Amino acid sequence: MTATWTENEVTLLFIQCLKERDKTTFLSIVDELQPYDLAKQYQFLPKKYQNKFLLFLPIKDLTRVIQELEQENQLEVLKKLGIEKSSKVLDLMENDELASLLTDLEPGQVEELISEMNMEEADMVKNIIHYPSETAGRIMNNRFVWVPRQCTVREAVDKLKKFAELAEYLNYFYVIDEGKKLIGVVSYKDLILADMHDKVEDIMYKRVIKVDALTDQEEVANIMSRYDFVTIPVVEDDDRLVGIVTVDDIIDVVIQEANEDIEKLSASGKAIDFETKPLVAAHRRLPWLIILLGIGLVSGSIIDGFSATLEQVVALAFFMPMIAGMTGNTGTQSLAVVVRGLVSNDLTLKQVLRLVLRELWVGIIIGVTCGLFISVIAFIWQGSMTLGIVVGTSLFITLIIGTLAGTIIPLILYKFDVDPAVASGPLITTINDIFSLLIYFGIATAFISRL
Amino acid sequence: MTATWTENEVTLLFIQCLKERDKTTFLSIVDELQPYDLAKQYQFLPKKYQNKFLLFLPIKDLTRVIQELEQENQLEVLKKLGIEKSSKVLDLMENDELASLLTDLEPGQVEELISEMNMEEADMVKNIIHYPSETAGRIMNNRFVWVPRQCTVREAVDKLKKFAELAEYLNYFYVIDEGKKLIGVVSYKDLILADMHDKVEDIMYKRVIKVDALTDQEEVANIMSRYDFVTIPVVEDDDRLVGIVTVDDIIDVVIQEANEDIEKLSASGKAIDFETKPLVAAHRRLPWLIILLGIGLVSGSIIDGFSATLEQVVALAFFMPMIAGMTGNTGTQSLAVVVRGLVSNDLTLKQVLRLVLRELWVGIIIGVTCGLFISVIAFIWQGSMTLGIVVGTSLFITLIIGTLAGTIIPLILYKFDVDPAVASGPLITTINDIFSLLIYFGIATAFISRL
Repeated sequence: MTATWTENEVTLLFIQCLKERDKTTFLSIVDELQPYDLAKQYQFLPKKYQNKFLLFLPIKDLTRVIQELEQENQLEVLKKLGIEKSSKVLDLMENDELASLLTDLEPGQVEELISEMNMEEADMVKNIIHYPSETAGRIMNNRFVWVPRQCTVREAVDKLKKFAELAEYLNYFYVIDEGKKLIGVVSYKDLILADMHDKVEDIMYKRVIKVDALTDQEEVANIMSRYDFVTIPVVEDDDRLVGIVTVDDIIDVVIQEANEDIEKLSASGKAIDFETKPLVAAHRRLPWLIILLGIGLVSGSIIDGFSATLEQVVALAFFMPMIAGMTGNTGTQSLAVVVRGLVSNDLTLKQVLRLVLRELWVGIIIGVTCGLFISVIAFIWQGSMTLGIVVGTSLFITLIIGTLAGTIIPLILYKFDVDPAVASGPLITTINDIFSLLIYFGIATAFISRL
Repeated sequence: MTATWTENEVTLLFIQCLKERDKTTFLSIVDELQPYDLAKQYQFLPKKYQNKFLLFLPIKDLTRVIQELEQENQLEVLKKLGIEKSSKVLDLMENDELASLLTDLEPGQVEELISEMNMEEADMVKNIIHYPSETAGRIMNNRFVWVPRQCTVREAVDKLKKFAELAEYLNYFYVIDEGKKLIGVVSYKDLILADMHDKVEDIMYKRVIKVDALTDQEEVANIMSRYDFVTIPVVEDDDRLVGIVTVDDIIDVVIQEANEDIEKLSASGKAIDFETKPLVAAHRRLPWLIILLGIGLVSGSIIDGFSATLEQVVALAFFMPMIAGMTGNTGTQSLAVVVRGLVSNDLTLKQVLRLVLRELWVGIIIGVTCGLFISVIAFIWQGSMTLGIVVGTSLFITLIIGTLAGTIIPLILYKFDVDPAVASGPLITTINDIFSLLIYFGIATAFISRL
């Protein structure tokens, strides 16, 4: 009925239903909407209809709407629902969603929220929020189907039917032994093709790809994208199955990790989006800027140290921003290659050497090209062959050093288990600034008598 | 059997089987390995066993291995197989994988490869490679299950069973009318829960979320991550169902798009990874560097224009790198926020205004803080109150302008449908260099009599 309706038309229809208390039509529209769209509709509605909208929604759809909201709005809606209804919603929520809702809340608030929940669900969630952030344990949920090893295919199918409503994805189910140890996996396809009387144990796939609960979420994303899985089982030390990570969360992880890399590369501080308030955004960005300001002053004092040279040949100042800028740019380029390369590569020593050697060559090629180019320009512009040679040689050397710094610094950080993206673009740029000024003025001072 | 074996142990076992021509054991190991691992094993093997390995593999597993390889290796293996076997492999390959294999090949090579293929498959692939790159049409495949509207649930289940081997994901199947028009979708869950005699038409979900074949792949990724789908149907103008995009490809898209953003933000040029040869990498990076070199010379000529001022007060040079650097850094920060924000937000005019206003405030807060800070330092360092005021005021103004430039330039580009990440960090940095030098020396020249 609403198949071709626009969002606005749906909103108007909702308002009409709410006005006329027409719950039947209301529910028939709800039935046709995806959770994301339903949540959007809720937020579109004028304030005065929102409460009634929540009242009309069955618990199941309410849960879906809440899962799509931002944390702030989730808490607001839960409060409106009252303890009884909200505890039912919390019971129905996916554990990973619930865990992320509870993240950053005061312990008191957490207790209050989950106090009325079903014990088992509450324990599961408490368990999840104990894992360190950004690990498999933190993003896993318990909406999966498992069967004991002695089960037949028919019994497995029956269990699957029973849990069809609950489980997020039915692509695989997991086989466990008496100690809850994960021993196999069966894909739904295999189940369809198998004989009803087969034992699950005989058709299961035993070399199960799984992750430990403490595995970094980025590593989990790598594994899932490598194997094209829709879900991956999460185990603890003893191979005990404790949850699954689903592909929808992995997409969020990939986006989040890419954003983090970009934030660090651009030193823009943690998590600033379109909704962040100015004071918060400024506060998050300032620390880096102050540090960079300090390092910028180091550049200043280097120039100060060479001020005698500079006073004699003011033309040296003309090429200062270009040399510093170019060194920074080439360093940032190398850095970006390394940071993103590390996302999908494991590094061996051999590969590190190859990479550094490659970048050395790139530096030399870039250095020769740009160095020659600028020598000629400097000569034509300022009419001094010596100045041309000084500028060209400096650029040649600084470009090689800049390229190597942009490669080696993040690799060293990575080796010491520091996230290489911390060696943010601006940091590399600023370090390269200092190098390039020292080299430039050093060479210029050596040639000062001829300039 | 091989459940707990390490990769090396599996390789050794493979070598043994190949030596002893023990195909039975060989196939039982193959059966336990994921395609990715099987392809890795193939690449681990000493050259002399690789051909025998390919000979031993059944076509189905051969296809899986080939799909995991890089284009270069894919072509090599296909050549080794000979026309007959390779055409069978191509028939079995997922169309999107095949399409990406054929990308960048000469038309002659394409014809040669697909000449022996099954007509229908070949047409499908030819169709896919006609879509512009980075669109839904280009990454879709035809491994989906569809049923006509009059079908019953039992018939649908039967069809599903028949296609279980072929279809990548069985999470949903699509309902079409007489004209192949997509009119509904049924999830596997709903099918399990439905009565066998129900008509598919009655249990299907009519408000189908779908994408046009020409939709940008980034938009497709957004929609899929919003709705947590595992597959999404792709239609042409007339709603005719032409394929599906699967979640595994979407993860690749998300990673690729993030890499592209980072490449552009760092002006590192197209696609440089750990394997790229030095000459190629240098060639890809040089164009940007040359452009930036040119713009750097503009900065130089600005300083040249103010050389009278600079000659009188050489101390002005000390703060030059810091002011230019800080303006560049704050611009990059704003740019990163905008570029990544645009990945998941659609922009309304209201939101643009809010964002620009927010960044203006951020610029003012950052400007006041850093400006005051540097005034004091400049005064203490150089003992000149006027110099302190000149440096502080300049930094205040340039930080505001830098922040706004980093926000507004990518937004304008976005408005004109240019990818905002093209306004790469280095470009913004270089533009901000020019602004900051003009302002700094402009203010200094105005106060020159007091300096």
